[in-house]
Amino acid sequence: MSSKLKIIPLGGLDRIGMNMTAFEYEDSIIVVDCGLSFPTEDMLGIDLVIPDITYLKQNEDKVKAFFITHGHEDHIGALPYVLREMNLPLYATKLTLAIIESKLKEHNLTKSVKRKIIKYGQSVNLGPFRVEFIRINHSIADAASLAIFTPVGTVVHTGDFKIDYTPVFGDSADLQRLGELGKKGVLALLCDSTNAIRPGFTSSERTVGKTLDHIFAEHKDRRIIVATFASNVDRVQQIINTAHRYGKKVVVEGRSMVNIISIAQELEYIKIPEGTLIETEMLRNYPEEQTVLITTGSQGESMAALSRMASGIHRRVSIQPRDVVILSSTPIPGNEKAVSKVINELSAKGAKVICQDTHVSGHACQEEIKLMYSLVRPKYSIPVHGEYRHRMAQAEIAESLGIQRDNILMVNAGDVLELDGESACVTGQVTHGAILVDGLGVGDVGNIVLRDRQNLSQDGIIIVVLTLNRRNNELLAGPDIVSRGFVYIREAENLMEEAHQVVESAVEGCLNRRISDWGKIKNVIRDSLGDYLWKKMRRNPMILPIIMEVDV
Amino acid sequence: MSSKLKIIPLGGLDRIGMNMTAFEYEDSIIVVDCGLSFPTEDMLGIDLVIPDITYLKQNEDKVKAFFITHGHEDHIGALPYVLREMNLPLYATKLTLAIIESKLKEHNLTKSVKRKIIKYGQSVNLGPFRVEFIRINHSIADAASLAIFTPVGTVVHTGDFKIDYTPVFGDSADLQRLGELGKKGVLALLCDSTNAIRPGFTSSERTVGKTLDHIFAEHKDRRIIVATFASNVDRVQQIINTAHRYGKKVVVEGRSMVNIISIAQELEYIKIPEGTLIETEMLRNYPEEQTVLITTGSQGESMAALSRMASGIHRRVSIQPRDVVILSSTPIPGNEKAVSKVINELSAKGAKVICQDTHVSGHACQEEIKLMYSLVRPKYSIPVHGEYRHRMAQAEIAESLGIQRDNILMVNAGDVLELDGESACVTGQVTHGAILVDGLGVGDVGNIVLRDRQNLSQDGIIIVVLTLNRRNNELLAGPDIVSRGFVYIREAENLMEEAHQVVESAVEGCLNRRISDWGKIKNVIRDSLGDYLWKKMRRNPMILPIIMEVDV
Repeated sequence: MSSKLKIIPLGGLDRIGMNMTAFEYEDSIIVVDCGLSFPTEDMLGIDLVIPDITYLKQNEDKVKAFFITHGHEDHIGALPYVLREMNLPLYATKLTLAIIESKLKEHNLTKSVKRKIIKYGQSVNLGPFRVEFIRINHSIADAASLAIFTPVGTVVHTGDFKIDYTPVFGDSADLQRLGELGKKGVLALLCDSTNAIRPGFTSSERTVGKTLDHIFAEHKDRRIIVATFASNVDRVQQIINTAHRYGKKVVVEGRSMVNIISIAQELEYIKIPEGTLIETEMLRNYPEEQTVLITTGSQGESMAALSRMASGIHRRVSIQPRDVVILSSTPIPGNEKAVSKVINELSAKGAKVICQDTHVSGHACQEEIKLMYSLVRPKYSIPVHGEYRHRMAQAEIAESLGIQRDNILMVNAGDVLELDGESACVTGQVTHGAILVDGLGVGDVGNIVLRDRQNLSQDGIIIVVLTLNRRNNELLAGPDIVSRGFVYIREAENLMEEAHQVVESAVEGCLNRRISDWGKIKNVIRDSLGDYLWKKMRRNPMILPIIMEVDV
Repeated sequence: MSSKLKIIPLGGLDRIGMNMTAFEYEDSIIVVDCGLSFPTEDMLGIDLVIPDITYLKQNEDKVKAFFITHGHEDHIGALPYVLREMNLPLYATKLTLAIIESKLKEHNLTKSVKRKIIKYGQSVNLGPFRVEFIRINHSIADAASLAIFTPVGTVVHTGDFKIDYTPVFGDSADLQRLGELGKKGVLALLCDSTNAIRPGFTSSERTVGKTLDHIFAEHKDRRIIVATFASNVDRVQQIINTAHRYGKKVVVEGRSMVNIISIAQELEYIKIPEGTLIETEMLRNYPEEQTVLITTGSQGESMAALSRMASGIHRRVSIQPRDVVILSSTPIPGNEKAVSKVINELSAKGAKVICQDTHVSGHACQEEIKLMYSLVRPKYSIPVHGEYRHRMAQAEIAESLGIQRDNILMVNAGDVLELDGESACVTGQVTHGAILVDGLGVGDVGNIVLRDRQNLSQDGIIIVVLTLNRRNNELLAGPDIVSRGFVYIREAENLMEEAHQVVESAVEGCLNRRISDWGKIKNVIRDSLGDYLWKKMRRNPMILPIIMEVDV
């Protein structure tokens, strides 16, 4: 019996971001992407989230390499954490690798990690696999789809994609190669579902350039501030081109933006007319209407440059009543309120805020997904990169294009999908999940800690301390009550006094009954105080009894 | 010198919800609306927010009554809290008052509070004021605009409004009366800004009925579940009508929905064909395709019926693969992710989720705002009910219609706007703000408590306890370290051991130096442990040293 190919998504399905998919054939595994995700609201205090790689570590001798489709955080962000645990070679296109490079530098990993630039059309042979990089479009340059040739057939992984016939940098997606692969026969297509619920075609990046031109034309006598995603080099290019056309100087604000632009400039992925870019300090040498600021913070991130300008705490830029602020982005779900807040603050400072037609998505809408399926014509459809409803929407598109319902595979993270030309089915589950990174700690914050943080954040904590004589259980000090995040003690003096009495009589009761099991005493304190507070206030603070013992 | 009219917004401007505006002339004050607002993300653990009424209490003898424009929470929700502190008569239309009635019942206030139903076209005379209720449209029946006749001129307050030429219940807005008032001369217009950034006209509520009809026709053989706002009686009416037309039985799920429907039914604001409404328990007597469920939870509220169905914890309804779920609503900003989660869960259970063209707004878009201004033609424009950017958008509309820029008044909560036929300007500020309600406590949670909750929610708490001999400051027990919401102690044993040593040597240092000021000892503990944890982990848990003293 011949072997099957295993496709194992290790993240990126239930959870947005954290893209990582393992392809396994006999004793070889290759991994596509290694992304992080940003914490959801219930992950209190967490900085970022990375995929659990237990399965890869268990099969360390099998794992050959990482193939990275493009340079966005949800595809590369976990690399510094994963490469510290597993030293594997990286394959990616030029810009993608340059962005990874700066991450490796930050984490002192440049020396240990092998990496190689792959051009579009080039392939990498690794054991039973050959992986070809195919030119595709996205909201960052140098994005690649991958054709993974395996002994049981060819698998196409679109990566994040859109079809842009008139991209700002580079060429349009290599539809011919995709068609050629399809013609020869493709076993399975893993396709981006992000915009699968949106009808039509995603507009070309160039349409944003036209809007920018109109806005600049209409506001020749104003300073213009444009906020966008740091990684959208093509967007930045268009802003710079427009600024140059209108004879304006450009300042870049925001650490990540400065970083990516300098990488792109070095690789000549962006062309900045000489003399156009100036330092922030030089702003005062030019009349306001001759300047343009490009900045981070288009998602309302509270620490980013635009938010700091909006709330008046940016050190070098203060918003003026005649400023025009362009938000060249749409809020990522969950950021709507933060973006609204920034817009309100900017408006209140008198700035004019423009956010209509100033952004296009980097992901394929329904017609582009249909185009992809029509070129590749896979036997199996595996919708990826989207919430369940988005992947389901792609499944419907696939079905409408004639893919058999049984051949549309809705997989979950951790599923082991075994397939070949004859059949495809999920045969098992491997360890997978989300590892939380908080400060310098990786994985030391889990469900109990988060549940405690949740509890603390809702009703605060009440600490009850008492000191007992170890010899005879006599009460030597306390019970003292200390609270944080509960109520203003000054406003609630009576309450705290009564609470104190409740605790005191609970402790006395225990000691009178000669209870010497501290666990029991703590439970009695917790229960009696908890009941009292719930009855009195309908609140459930965390109650933490601490007993100290003294030998006297 | 003659007196001026004072208009004092006490909420509802910077903060969405919490609508409350005082109108003061000499020794009389009337108040329009008394709403609550829901907590923002940074208000950890808070249930709801009500306006600070210090100013009204300071002027208790002046305040005559509340006039309520319609029955939504952001206009009536603070009444039970405010009426407990100030017993004032209420004036409102029939349905509005009936909804308030059920709140008063819940808070045992039905006996003490005087209240009177006012019909459209009727007026109430109170001191120098006459207040007329004018028929207007909104997403709840019986909404009113108010004409407030004062000695210095007439003020029109639109309340929340849209213009619906073909409303489901009752008649279209009384444009004639608004025009008549405008013809006679209106001093100032306070106008709803919610949709002022949206071009065009808000569609009629009836258009939703048509969409529902199409969806029911297409899914005759399926059970249909429709989620919408409990208070949107007209929407519920249309769902029931459509269900009846297709011969389906209707079940209502969700406490607030059941409550409002029974109020509306009693007042005959909703007509339910006999035999259409059945109890949930009866569902099993009918084939699924003959049933329709109307439910709360269209905003993804985690405790509402739809969310419980989606996550499979609803006691009586479980989602079936052939169910069709209609979300007859759009997410209120901030709820997008919660709604997405519910859609994903429903899709994962196989249900078909429909949310296109299934909702219309209850607020006026730009063309309706223009219509309102063109009828009323006020001397002064006072944009209300919206974030700054929405109110600013209305200001631009007002200016485009010929209102002088100086006569467009962007006021903030607490501003005292003094005006008459000659002039209008902000002459002062009164106490105003947001009072937080948490459990049964009103106002006992403030900035310090919230800051503590924020801190606790991010990095947890570390408590350091020690017992000292009062006589000689000898260390009798501890220092013990207890943490909650920080890290998994088991994973961080070394860390906690080192932390313990840090604290121990800090305490020893203090005692050796004979420091007997406990404040100082606590500071030393806090600083040394804080430094250590930041250096080691880049984290900032709250550190709470507690010293107990014992006499031995």
